[in-house]
Amino acid sequence: MSNPFLINSGPYNVNEILQILNINSNIGENDKIENIKDLFSADKKSITFFHSKKYQEIANKTKASYCLTTENLKDYLPKNCKPIIVKNVLVSTSIVTQKFYPNSIEDEYDNTVIEINKSEFAKRINAGKNVLVGQNVKIGSNCLIGHNSIIEKNVQIGNNCKIGSNTIIRNSIIKDNVSILDNCVIGKKGFGFFPISEKNIRYPHIGIVIINENSEIGCGATIDRGSMSNTEIGKNTFLDNQIHIAHNVKIGDNTIIAGQVGIAGSSTIGNNVKIGGQAGISGHLKIGNNVEIAGGSGVIKNIPDNVKVMGYPAKNIREFLRDNK
Amino acid sequence: MSNPFLINSGPYNVNEILQILNINSNIGENDKIENIKDLFSADKKSITFFHSKKYQEIANKTKASYCLTTENLKDYLPKNCKPIIVKNVLVSTSIVTQKFYPNSIEDEYDNTVIEINKSEFAKRINAGKNVLVGQNVKIGSNCLIGHNSIIEKNVQIGNNCKIGSNTIIRNSIIKDNVSILDNCVIGKKGFGFFPISEKNIRYPHIGIVIINENSEIGCGATIDRGSMSNTEIGKNTFLDNQIHIAHNVKIGDNTIIAGQVGIAGSSTIGNNVKIGGQAGISGHLKIGNNVEIAGGSGVIKNIPDNVKVMGYPAKNIREFLRDNK
Amino acid sequence: MSNPFLINSGPYNVNEILQILNINSNIGENDKIENIKDLFSADKKSITFFHSKKYQEIANKTKASYCLTTENLKDYLPKNCKPIIVKNVLVSTSIVTQKFYPNSIEDEYDNTVIEINKSEFAKRINAGKNVLVGQNVKIGSNCLIGHNSIIEKNVQIGNNCKIGSNTIIRNSIIKDNVSILDNCVIGKKGFGFFPISEKNIRYPHIGIVIINENSEIGCGATIDRGSMSNTEIGKNTFLDNQIHIAHNVKIGDNTIIAGQVGIAGSSTIGNNVKIGGQAGISGHLKIGNNVEIAGGSGVIKNIPDNVKVMGYPAKNIREFLRDNK
Repeated sequence: MSNPFLINSGPYNVNEILQILNINSNIGENDKIENIKDLFSADKKSITFFHSKKYQEIANKTKASYCLTTENLKDYLPKNCKPIIVKNVLVSTSIVTQKFYPNSIEDEYDNTVIEINKSEFAKRINAGKNVLVGQNVKIGSNCLIGHNSIIEKNVQIGNNCKIGSNTIIRNSIIKDNVSILDNCVIGKKGFGFFPISEKNIRYPHIGIVIINENSEIGCGATIDRGSMSNTEIGKNTFLDNQIHIAHNVKIGDNTIIAGQVGIAGSSTIGNNVKIGGQAGISGHLKIGNNVEIAGGSGVIKNIPDNVKVMGYPAKNIREFLRDNK
Repeated sequence: MSNPFLINSGPYNVNEILQILNINSNIGENDKIENIKDLFSADKKSITFFHSKKYQEIANKTKASYCLTTENLKDYLPKNCKPIIVKNVLVSTSIVTQKFYPNSIEDEYDNTVIEINKSEFAKRINAGKNVLVGQNVKIGSNCLIGHNSIIEKNVQIGNNCKIGSNTIIRNSIIKDNVSILDNCVIGKKGFGFFPISEKNIRYPHIGIVIINENSEIGCGATIDRGSMSNTEIGKNTFLDNQIHIAHNVKIGDNTIIAGQVGIAGSSTIGNNVKIGGQAGISGHLKIGNNVEIAGGSGVIKNIPDNVKVMGYPAKNIREFLRDNK
Repeated sequence: MSNPFLINSGPYNVNEILQILNINSNIGENDKIENIKDLFSADKKSITFFHSKKYQEIANKTKASYCLTTENLKDYLPKNCKPIIVKNVLVSTSIVTQKFYPNSIEDEYDNTVIEINKSEFAKRINAGKNVLVGQNVKIGSNCLIGHNSIIEKNVQIGNNCKIGSNTIIRNSIIKDNVSILDNCVIGKKGFGFFPISEKNIRYPHIGIVIINENSEIGCGATIDRGSMSNTEIGKNTFLDNQIHIAHNVKIGDNTIIAGQVGIAGSSTIGNNVKIGGQAGISGHLKIGNNVEIAGGSGVIKNIPDNVKVMGYPAKNIREFLRDNK
């Protein structure tokens, strides 16, 4: 599911895209491009981007018609996909994404909100004092929303959900029976930008946060929305207090995450995983199903299914305990 | 001190308890049970629970008349205590606890609160804007409460206390001269549940949080209330910012805890302890008096009095520094 | 820059200062002392303090006329600076600082605030609902302030700044083009006190927080103001979510700090530094320019320029990875 909230200002001609990138070329001419998507989800009306050999297998199968990439990587692309050679793939991707989604860079507070008791929800939602609600918000039946919480624009909340107090939600889909406790910030832009001396360039965040059925998010959580894909929490997954989930992270079902854990951008966590308190997981990793990660561990590489790890860098738990007797 | 706030819907006949557990037995018949308590605090009107050999010594001295336990453990119980054999002690304990305390599972926002300036405290408490106060709240003299803070139901605050802004307190007893800074959440239910595919079962939390005289709690703290016992912070103990204290933790007097420390459930920390920033302490541990734990350490076993530790797993600090030259 | 907000209740005669320290001496007699400053920034109208050999070089060059110090350290001072011998330098410094700045100990919520839409800023600042603003606040043009945020007294905000929702700022100078996201607490007193059984003595915090141009502070940050100097964040420096910056820390320009990092008191971080998620940096350290600190590392000693470190204790990254294969 892509972001159902953002308005795509496309389509654009390929030539218009080349122009904002300052590229002189006549590939594509007047082909219409409807959207920018990642290698996996792109279709033939899309432009995509390919910036690291790590993704060569998926690049090789992309359905996109155009791809922002480099001289070195272009030969991994299939015949259906024409390379557009750029110096810095991610900066160019950022520029093109902004073209399609001009409002995806900045995260200004939502000034469209009104007090919930003056909104369409006044009669049917059990809300505390000083609750604010923005435009394009849907809330199911039998929900509670605590004091001072702000449901900004572009949020869908299912049935039987409980939102605590002082919590802020934006750009998110919350499914049925989800609890989000106090002081959380769900759906803000991720920590993505291109470091440039004097003034960093912020990266667009066109993804959303999806929290699936029966899950619980503890106090003080920050769950950032995705940049090019979504951030997603599975069903019946419980997060303790003070957890940070970065952009594009996907967490499976029935997973349990203890307090103060941090998961860096774009990592994937399987089903039935247990993560102990204060563990950290680096970005762009794949953690399998039924994995157990001991509290305080630092995970810096992929973990296959059914493995228990501990330590920093995290390794097999028996090995760790033997080495640290 | 047990939770003075929760209403006990007992007593129940032993038979009524057996019935909700689906147990066919005629032990006890019509004995009245007044409460469910842990092995240590149970008296002869109580039912208790015993689920791990770790607690065999204390089980052997319990004063409870009945005990939820397993076939393997029942022989550790004294003669005065009749075992009730169940498959999963903690799930059964949860079910019985809910019977006595039907409101101890969910942590819905308190919708009984009113603005403090329309309450009995309007004249005598120095409170900021938009402060809310629930039912069954007591506040001593000479207290300050910052803007947007919420003192939910079932809270006692002593004299000369300072509560910051954006802070939420429930189910707690705050003694004299305590400072709680901004953005804290004190007294919410702990991260306790039985993991069950499709839909986890939440654990009841019938304990409270007690913060003793002259202590200070930094910004962004989360201190969860106890499940079967209380969470307690000693006198003159200072916590820095962004600290997480899980359910049932007991911290002694004159203890100093630096920023971003996490203490997992049911651990006990002594008096005059110093814990450096970002250290983590696993659950169910006993940390002695006058212990020093270096910043960043991960403590996974008990520490006796007067010891300095460092590392993950934390060990004697001299040994650690020698091994890591 | 020292704190432009605090009112200095001096000058005092040297004799008045000796008297509050219970010192019988006739040095200085009626010399006027205008201020208390650290060894480096003190001028001849100041009293300073010197408590550790670590600072001997800077002590040797101080311009202060008087210095709180010990018998052992006094000979490092230059001739222009008369030693005042005390038992505990920091406790005495605290007492003298309180004499000059009686309001620097406690951090009570600011009860001078009013709703921003009833303030001088009503027409020109784009602010959300329930925003409060204190006395002695300046806000530049083209700024946004999100819902429920509190700009307490003694704050200067530049042009084009974006403050999120539920954020609290006090005793701070925010330069142009700075973004501070939701749920932050900026400028509170640091975690400084003298541990004394029964009742710790809080340390005065007469510094401020300075956040320089083009920087971004993520959600849930706590940035404490300085005790004797300021806490400062450089230009174009980006902090991710849930970061804790203790008192007196200085961070350079173009630095990137990932989620859940903690930096303990008085450490200095250079320019162009990258710090991975959950890393911790001990107090009183100097981290050079262009340093990279891997996520989860624990830094316990100084790091020179251009070095990459990893591990706990953090060491050269190649060495760490070789040792942990």
